[in-house]
Amino acid sequence: MLDRLKHLITGSPLPSQQIAHEQLNKIRALAAFSPDALSSIGYANQEVYLGLVAAGSLGLVQSVPMALVITMLMTIVAISYYQTVHAYPSGGGSYAVARENLGAFPGLLSAAALLIDYLLTAAVSLTAGLAAIASAFPELWPHRVGLSLLILVAITLLNLRGLRETGTAMAIPVYLFLFAFLSMLAYGASVVLIDGPISFSATAVPAAQPLTFFLMLHTFATGCTALTGIEAISNGVPAFRPPKSKNAGQTLVVMAILMGVLFLGSIGLTQLLAVVPNPQETILSALARRLLGSGAAYLIVQASTMLILGIAANTSFAGFPRLAAILAADGYLPGQLTNLGDRLVFANGILLLAAATGALIVVFGGDTHALIPLFAVGVYIAYTLSQIGMIVHWLRNRGKGWRLKAATNGMGALATGVTLVVVGVNKFVEGAWITVFLIPILLFGFCKVHNHYQEVDKQLSLGELPGQFTEPFPTRVVVPVAGVNRGMVDAINYARAISKNVTAVYVELESGAGEDVRRDWERRWPDVPLVILPSPYRSIVAPFMEFLDKLDEQSNDGQLAAVVLPEWIPAKWWQNLLHNQTARLIRSALLYRRRDLGFQRVIIEVPYHLRR
Amino acid sequence: MLDRLKHLITGSPLPSQQIAHEQLNKIRALAAFSPDALSSIGYANQEVYLGLVAAGSLGLVQSVPMALVITMLMTIVAISYYQTVHAYPSGGGSYAVARENLGAFPGLLSAAALLIDYLLTAAVSLTAGLAAIASAFPELWPHRVGLSLLILVAITLLNLRGLRETGTAMAIPVYLFLFAFLSMLAYGASVVLIDGPISFSATAVPAAQPLTFFLMLHTFATGCTALTGIEAISNGVPAFRPPKSKNAGQTLVVMAILMGVLFLGSIGLTQLLAVVPNPQETILSALARRLLGSGAAYLIVQASTMLILGIAANTSFAGFPRLAAILAADGYLPGQLTNLGDRLVFANGILLLAAATGALIVVFGGDTHALIPLFAVGVYIAYTLSQIGMIVHWLRNRGKGWRLKAATNGMGALATGVTLVVVGVNKFVEGAWITVFLIPILLFGFCKVHNHYQEVDKQLSLGELPGQFTEPFPTRVVVPVAGVNRGMVDAINYARAISKNVTAVYVELESGAGEDVRRDWERRWPDVPLVILPSPYRSIVAPFMEFLDKLDEQSNDGQLAAVVLPEWIPAKWWQNLLHNQTARLIRSALLYRRRDLGFQRVIIEVPYHLRR
Repeated sequence: MLDRLKHLITGSPLPSQQIAHEQLNKIRALAAFSPDALSSIGYANQEVYLGLVAAGSLGLVQSVPMALVITMLMTIVAISYYQTVHAYPSGGGSYAVARENLGAFPGLLSAAALLIDYLLTAAVSLTAGLAAIASAFPELWPHRVGLSLLILVAITLLNLRGLRETGTAMAIPVYLFLFAFLSMLAYGASVVLIDGPISFSATAVPAAQPLTFFLMLHTFATGCTALTGIEAISNGVPAFRPPKSKNAGQTLVVMAILMGVLFLGSIGLTQLLAVVPNPQETILSALARRLLGSGAAYLIVQASTMLILGIAANTSFAGFPRLAAILAADGYLPGQLTNLGDRLVFANGILLLAAATGALIVVFGGDTHALIPLFAVGVYIAYTLSQIGMIVHWLRNRGKGWRLKAATNGMGALATGVTLVVVGVNKFVEGAWITVFLIPILLFGFCKVHNHYQEVDKQLSLGELPGQFTEPFPTRVVVPVAGVNRGMVDAINYARAISKNVTAVYVELESGAGEDVRRDWERRWPDVPLVILPSPYRSIVAPFMEFLDKLDEQSNDGQLAAVVLPEWIPAKWWQNLLHNQTARLIRSALLYRRRDLGFQRVIIEVPYHLRR
Repeated sequence: MLDRLKHLITGSPLPSQQIAHEQLNKIRALAAFSPDALSSIGYANQEVYLGLVAAGSLGLVQSVPMALVITMLMTIVAISYYQTVHAYPSGGGSYAVARENLGAFPGLLSAAALLIDYLLTAAVSLTAGLAAIASAFPELWPHRVGLSLLILVAITLLNLRGLRETGTAMAIPVYLFLFAFLSMLAYGASVVLIDGPISFSATAVPAAQPLTFFLMLHTFATGCTALTGIEAISNGVPAFRPPKSKNAGQTLVVMAILMGVLFLGSIGLTQLLAVVPNPQETILSALARRLLGSGAAYLIVQASTMLILGIAANTSFAGFPRLAAILAADGYLPGQLTNLGDRLVFANGILLLAAATGALIVVFGGDTHALIPLFAVGVYIAYTLSQIGMIVHWLRNRGKGWRLKAATNGMGALATGVTLVVVGVNKFVEGAWITVFLIPILLFGFCKVHNHYQEVDKQLSLGELPGQFTEPFPTRVVVPVAGVNRGMVDAINYARAISKNVTAVYVELESGAGEDVRRDWERRWPDVPLVILPSPYRSIVAPFMEFLDKLDEQSNDGQLAAVVLPEWIPAKWWQNLLHNQTARLIRSALLYRRRDLGFQRVIIEVPYHLRR
C-alpha cells in the first residue's frame, strides 16, 4: 500500500544499469552549471541597495563603485577557478582540492562549509525567487513562507523522481532569463544615452546614518554574495565533452563575463536612473518596472528571475546529496546517504536537504535579507580553502609557468580570505555566527561518525577465529507464555525439537491468574515444566529477564541459552495497536541486554499468522 | 536513562497491593464529587449572557426566567439521580445503567457520549478557568491557549504520578470557592435590598436582533450546561461510608441545592444590578467586580473560580481513564487501556485524554463559547439514556412505590430528551454536529475492535491440537550475510549446530562485490555454500525473499525453514542511525509475510555486541 503510494509519487523503480553518463556541449553545460551564479543578482543587488540606502542618496551613489569592487573580486576568483578547471579535469570541487592538497581536516572544513552553502543556496534562492514574483503581485507578499515551501516540495518531488533532463529542459528558462535581462539592460543603456542620467539628489532619499567606511564594508560583506555559484563549473568538468578542461574553461569565461555584465549593468542602470523601490518590492523589480512599465515585458523579466532562482535552488538538490554521499562513502556521514534510491538518486540526501531548507525558510520567515549573513561566510570559507589548496598544488606539482599560476591563486586566496574576514566580522551578530558555530559542530559530527565506523571495522575484523562448534551442541530453551492457545503450539513444538531442556514461563500480573494457566498447561503439555513468576510492579519483561539470569547462574553448564518467542501476527497492520506488544518488548530486551559471557542469548521467533 | 527520566517526573513505581479503597465521609465526598457540577456556573452563566445580550437590554431581563427554567430542569434531573443512587449502590454510571437495562448497544452509545463528555469537561473547564483569571489580568488574554495547555500538562503529570489525595487536599479549594461565592451572593443580596434593583433600560444595551422564541431556545440550549457534572455522585456511591446510598443521596441533595443557589443567585444579581461586562471579561467577573471592586476580595473570587474549574478538569482525568479501562476490559477499546501504570493509574487513558484535550483547546483557540455546543449534546445523550435505563429498571424490578419512581425517572428522561433535541437542533451548525458525527464513529470503532478481539480468541482457541513434533526434526537454515566479519561467527556456528543444511546468501548491490566476499568466505567457511544473488533494483530484502521461496519450492522435503540473522548491536543507541537496518528489514519481511504452508518460517537472531 505504502509502496504503491510511493511509486505513484516518485515513479516506479529503475534498474541500476540505467545510470547514464551524458556529456554536455558548451551551450547545455552553461545552462546546467550557471543558474546558481547568474541568479546571484536576484539577491546581491538587493543587498547592495539595502546596505547603501541607510546612508540615503549619498549612499546610493556609491552603488557603482561598490559594484566595481565586487566585479574585480569576481574576476580574480574566476581566473583562479579557470586554473582549477585545467588542473583538475576529474572535477575540482573545494572538498577534493582541499583534501588532496591540504589534508583531511581542511578537506572536511571545506566540506562542512559546502554543505551549509548548498543548504543556504536553496533557501536564499527560493525566498529571493518568491520576492521577485511577490514584487509583481504584492498580494502574494504575506504568503511568502507558504509559497516558498510549496515550491520546495515540488522541487523535492522532482528530484526524488530523478531529474534526467537537467541539461535540456532547464536550458530554456536559463536562456530566457539571459535574453530578458540582456535586452532590458541594452534598452536601459539606450534610455540613459538618449535622456541622460538622473541624479539621486532629485529624489532625495533621507539618510538614516552617515556614509562611513564601516557602512561600506558592511554593504560589501553581503553584496559579495554576487559571486556565489562561480565554482560550479569546476565541480562539473567531467560532464563536459572532450577536450573537457578546455571546454569547461571557455564556458567559465563566458559565464563570468555574463555575471559581470548582469551585475554591473543592473546596478549601473539603477544608479543612473535613480531607481528607488517601494517597501514591498525588490530593487531589480523596481528597475524593471521603471524601464518596462508594469506590462507583459515586466512580467517576463520577473518570471524569468523567479525561474532561474528556482533552478539555482534545484542545483543544490544535485550537489548536496552528491557531496553527502561522497562524505558518507569516506565514512564521515551515515552510510545511508550513499544508498541509491528506487530512481537512482541519493534519496536520503535529497530529503535531508529538503527538511533543512524548509526549516530555515520557516525560522527566518522567508526573508532573504535575514538569511544572507549566514550564506556569505560559508561560501568564502570554501573559496579560500580551495584557492589555498591550489597554491599547494602548484608548489607540489610545478610544471610550466607554475610560479605565475601559484601567484594567481595566491591573489585569489588573499581576496577571498580578506572577504571572509570582512563578512565574518561585519555580519557576525546578524547571523554569520550561526554558520561559524555550525561548522565546528558539523566537524565534530564528522569525526564522531568516522571514529564509530573505524571502531566497528576493528571490532568486526576477524583476527583469530574463536573456537568453532561443528557438532550439534545442547541448547537450553525458555519460552515465555501468555496463556494456552493456538499461537503457542508451533513455538512449543519447535522448542522441543531443538532441545531436551525446555521451560515455559508465565509472568503473573494478577494474583491467581497463574493457577488457571497452569491447569490448562498441564493438560496440554504435561512434560514441559511451567514456571509462574510474580510481578509486584506489573512488568512482564523485568521478572522474565531476572529469571533468565538466575537460570544461567544456576545451570552454569555451558549450554547455549535460547529464548523461543511465540508471536501471533494480526492480519492487518492497525490491529497491532490493539495488542500489548509483549513479545516485541522481550525481544528488544534480549537483543540489547549486553552479557559478559562470550555468547549472547539466541532469540528465536516462531510466528503464527491470524487470518483476518 | 529514559526510565530514570520517567521516574523523576512521575515518581518510582508502586507495587500492586498498594491499591487502597479509601472511604469518604460526606464532607470530603462533596469536595470530591461536586467540583464538576458546582463549577458549571463558570461557563453556563456566560452562555446565558451571550445568548440573551444579542437581544440587548430587552433580552438581558429574560436572564432570571431563563435561569428558573434551567433550575427546574436541574431539580428534575437531581431527583432522578437520587433514585439511581439508591437503586445502584455499586455505582450507577450511565454506561452501567444503560448497558444493564437497555442492552449492549445503548450502553455503548452512552459510553461514547460519556467519553466525549469527559473530554469536553476537561477542555471547557480549562478554558473557562483561564477566562476567569484573564478577566482579572487582561494582559493574559492573548496567551489563553498556551496557558491552558500549561495547566493541562500540570494536571496530566499530577495524574500520572497518581493523585492519592483526591478527597483531602482538594477539599480546601472547593470549600474556598463555596465560601467566596456564597458570601458574595449574600452581600449582593443585601446591596439589592438596601439600594433597590437597577433596571436595564438605564444602561441601554443595543439589540442586534429581536427577542424571539428561537433566540430563547438557542440560549437555553447552551445555558443548560449548568447541569453538567450532576451525575458524578451516582458513579461514586461505592466511595461513600456506609450506609452508602443514604449518604450519597444526602450529599446529592446538598450539592443540587448549592448548584441551584449559585446559579440562580449569580444570574439574579447580574440582572438586578444590570451588570454588563466589557469585551474581554466574563459575566461572573463583571458581577464580582461590580460588587467587590478590583481588590483582594475580587481576586479571591476569580482565583477560586479558576481553581474549582481546574479541579473539575481534573475529575475528567479520573473518570475518562476509568471508563476507558472498563470498555477495554469488555473488549471495546484497545487492551492497553487496562494496563495499570507504574503508579497504579491507567496511564494510557490519561495520556489519551490529555492529547485529545490539548488538540481541542488548540483547534478551538481556547474559546469556551466555541466548545460549548459540542459539550451539551454529549451530556444530554448520557442523561437521557441513563433515565430511560432507570425506567426499564423499575419496570423490571418493581418494588415499593415503583410506579412513582418510574414516573419520576420518566419525567427526567422527557426533560433531558427534549433538551437534547433542543440542543441538537439549535446548536447543530455551531458545533454540535461534531459530537453528532463523532459518536457513530466511536461506536463503529468499538464494534470493529470488539470483532477483532472475538476473532482473535476464536482463532487462538485450541480445538484439536495439530500434530506434535517430539523428536528433533531436520531444519533447513539460510543465513543472509553482509560480508565476512566477526559479527557472522556466532551466527554461522549456531546455524551449523542446529542443521546439516546451511546456505549463506549474499545480495550483491554493486557488481563484482560478490566475488570479493566469496573469496574471503571460502577461506573461512569452505564447507558452507555461499549463494550470490543479483539485485537490479538495489533492494536486499526482495531478492532474499524470492530466494527463500524458490528454495522451499525446489526442496519440498518437509524440512522446517529457518533463517538465522546475524545482528551486531552498537554500544550506543544513536549509533544505530549510522547503519543500514538490513537485519531488521529482513526480519520484518519474514515476520509479516504470510505463507500458505502450515508452518511459518522460524526467525533466529544471533546478536553480537560491539563494545563502544
